Amino acid sequence: MSAPGGDWASSPLLTDLYQLTMLQSYFDGGMHAEAVFEFFFRRLPPTRNFLIAAGLEQLVDYLTRLRFGTPELDVLADTGLFHDPFLAYLERFEFSGDLDAMPEGTVCFPNEPIARITAPLPEAQLVESRLLNLLHFETLIASKAARFVLAANDATLVDFGMRRAHGAEAAVLAARASYLAGFAGTATVLARPLFGIPIFGTMAHSYIEAHDSEIEAFERFARGHRGAVVLLIDTYDTEAAARDVVELATRLRGEGLAIDSVRIDSGDLDALSRSVRQILDDAPGDRIGIFVSGGLTEQDVARFVAAGTPIDGYGIGTALDASTDAPALDCAYKLQEYAGRPRRKRSPGKATLPGRKQVYRRYGADGRIERDVVTLVSEPRDGVPLLVPVLRRGKPVGELPDIGRIRERCAAELATLPAELTMVERQASFDVEIDESVTRLADQA
Amino acid sequence: MSAPGGDWASSPLLTDLYQLTMLQSYFDGGMHAEAVFEFFFRRLPPTRNFLIAAGLEQLVDYLTRLRFGTPELDVLADTGLFHDPFLAYLERFEFSGDLDAMPEGTVCFPNEPIARITAPLPEAQLVESRLLNLLHFETLIASKAARFVLAANDATLVDFGMRRAHGAEAAVLAARASYLAGFAGTATVLARPLFGIPIFGTMAHSYIEAHDSEIEAFERFARGHRGAVVLLIDTYDTEAAARDVVELATRLRGEGLAIDSVRIDSGDLDALSRSVRQILDDAPGDRIGIFVSGGLTEQDVARFVAAGTPIDGYGIGTALDASTDAPALDCAYKLQEYAGRPRRKRSPGKATLPGRKQVYRRYGADGRIERDVVTLVSEPRDGVPLLVPVLRRGKPVGELPDIGRIRERCAAELATLPAELTMVERQASFDVEIDESVTRLADQA
Repeated sequence: MSAPGGDWASSPLLTDLYQLTMLQSYFDGGMHAEAVFEFFFRRLPPTRNFLIAAGLEQLVDYLTRLRFGTPELDVLADTGLFHDPFLAYLERFEFSGDLDAMPEGTVCFPNEPIARITAPLPEAQLVESRLLNLLHFETLIASKAARFVLAANDATLVDFGMRRAHGAEAAVLAARASYLAGFAGTATVLARPLFGIPIFGTMAHSYIEAHDSEIEAFERFARGHRGAVVLLIDTYDTEAAARDVVELATRLRGEGLAIDSVRIDSGDLDALSRSVRQILDDAPGDRIGIFVSGGLTEQDVARFVAAGTPIDGYGIGTALDASTDAPALDCAYKLQEYAGRPRRKRSPGKATLPGRKQVYRRYGADGRIERDVVTLVSEPRDGVPLLVPVLRRGKPVGELPDIGRIRERCAAELATLPAELTMVERQASFDVEIDESVTRLADQA
Repeated sequence: MSAPGGDWASSPLLTDLYQLTMLQSYFDGGMHAEAVFEFFFRRLPPTRNFLIAAGLEQLVDYLTRLRFGTPELDVLADTGLFHDPFLAYLERFEFSGDLDAMPEGTVCFPNEPIARITAPLPEAQLVESRLLNLLHFETLIASKAARFVLAANDATLVDFGMRRAHGAEAAVLAARASYLAGFAGTATVLARPLFGIPIFGTMAHSYIEAHDSEIEAFERFARGHRGAVVLLIDTYDTEAAARDVVELATRLRGEGLAIDSVRIDSGDLDALSRSVRQILDDAPGDRIGIFVSGGLTEQDVARFVAAGTPIDGYGIGTALDASTDAPALDCAYKLQEYAGRPRRKRSPGKATLPGRKQVYRRYGADGRIERDVVTLVSEPRDGVPLLVPVLRRGKPVGELPDIGRIRERCAAELATLPAELTMVERQASFDVEIDESVTRLADQA
């Protein structure tokens, strides 16, 4: 797949056509006064109690690198939809506006602005499609991953989902979003050079099947592999394979070699983990861990933890990378103000709250979130403001935190969740307060 | 986001770590005999009666371009997991095997091999992750799109889903997969230079809101826009806006300007389409069409068609691009034969059928699919073989069809579906016959 300009995922043509035709109309009408757009989620699906904001780093990268080169302008000229003065304007186009946003890893809720763009109308408009594409997806996955993290009670979680992720970018961004939410790492190799994320690997059933015997496969791998040795034991008979692992570990020990873990990918994982645990406890040397995988959901993980199933780690694939129970969230990027006047949509079921807004969060004595208030920027309230300056006049205000710091922040944020929001099943919902300064403006707009 | 080697979506590091560690073990053990892997779907979710094979062009692109350059080798060396002789082997690595596959746009069913790779074991193994990532996603979306196409009864369908697609590649591949399945085009601009797909656009609510009046917004757009003019009429009062459109069309007509359609994005789309249709019929000149959007599913489209709602076209977003009712399908890429011996997995619930296989399809007198038989390649049956040679020794057998020809093929394929499989609701399921040559081999393996 080759694209004009090479790196097609960063292409300015990765947008909806109407953004560009509206831009030409704004250009023709001289409509370049300041606009304020906000990105927010409208509501949560039944299996989400909160969200984890994510994707800001990719958004900043997009906004600060957004340019139209000759190949892209040629594509647009070829459509016949755009006139030369507008194409010349696009050639000079860059994002010169402000971005305020919740830092990645922040716990957030519906109706709260997660990101606010303040820029000349054409700039704020054009970036809509990719902004939604990035912030929606990474927030979707980080929020899903956080549910696994809360359920797993400190067991190791690894992203195994590349194969069912929706394409290449979904695979690497899911690795990133799940890592920042608390996963230990990913199987997707490319996530290491792209984002500095730890990578993990075991072996496939085909590796076992390609050998004439399972024990021969185990031994070859254990002798040759330079990292932690994880042997897949469910290809034929899981318990028999576990006994072979004990025998192999005994033999290898004399040579100073160790088996780190076994992986079970099918069958009754609770029962098998218990019987395999008993078998493995006979092995000499360091304890051999049990790692499980195979279509696991956060409900499965919570069930194993509650039952005390002896599982040390989980490989999570499809349910994470495709967020299968809720593969899309209801979110929007809406014009709130233009040329100094509040703006709003009144479409049935999709009405919006106008004005430029901030979220103030108050914590209880136990450090947990007590109240969030969405208010106008001009009407500050008690508490910690959640949106912080990220870009001013198109330039970064400071350096964005690296992925390790985002991950620490997210862990700290999860600790501020009211206990009833930390359960896999919904036990309560958190209502965000809309300040009367906002509702008053909505009545007027 | 920058990656070693530049175009990160084509990177050989876009794979699961275990592929590379298994490869090193195969390298150390001299295991490079011929392996046969097949890609197939295990079962269908309740809302799919059939699948449309898609993604082959991207797979061929991946297989024929797969190389490890110095930046990628440096990343691998840096992990400490790989030794120098293996890295030197990777430097020479290329895919030298055979690929047989169903052409894109083919109707297919569970248990049928969609693609078969025959190659030295390490090559056939390494490509697994990206092969699954590409074929799963494009087949997922083409299959979903085909449901809209069957429901829409020749109304125009346009992909509006980029913002909720899972990242950049999902957006452009969803545009491609839905177009080949019969959509008229997409709003995603980049799909035009990448794939030659027609692009469509209307306007956003923010465009209307940024103007001081709706009619002013309509008029500016209609006067300045060089393509088909589609006016969004549901920002404030849909019927009032429709009357303004009639008034505007009347005025513009004298100047030789026309309004092509209106778009309604919220409210009771059936009732509004009917009342707006009546209003628009008063406009002079060419009939103004009605285009609707807003969270539409194929069930919605089928309902509108059954009710005779006067809708000319649909913009389909989230339900298509994220395949929200079934965001992942159960599929696998499994070793079927190695070094001349059939191989199979016997894991509970995941057992596979060994051997290299072909699918033969027979049609009834009405041209509709009557029977599919999955049999060993060595045991041909009556009917048309569905898998055709695509690569031989790593080189293309012929030119792949362009997207227009794939789209024609898919339309012809949809016409071969038994009528009971063309409904949005499941009325029957299609059982694929497994030839006894396959079951016999499974008993022996």
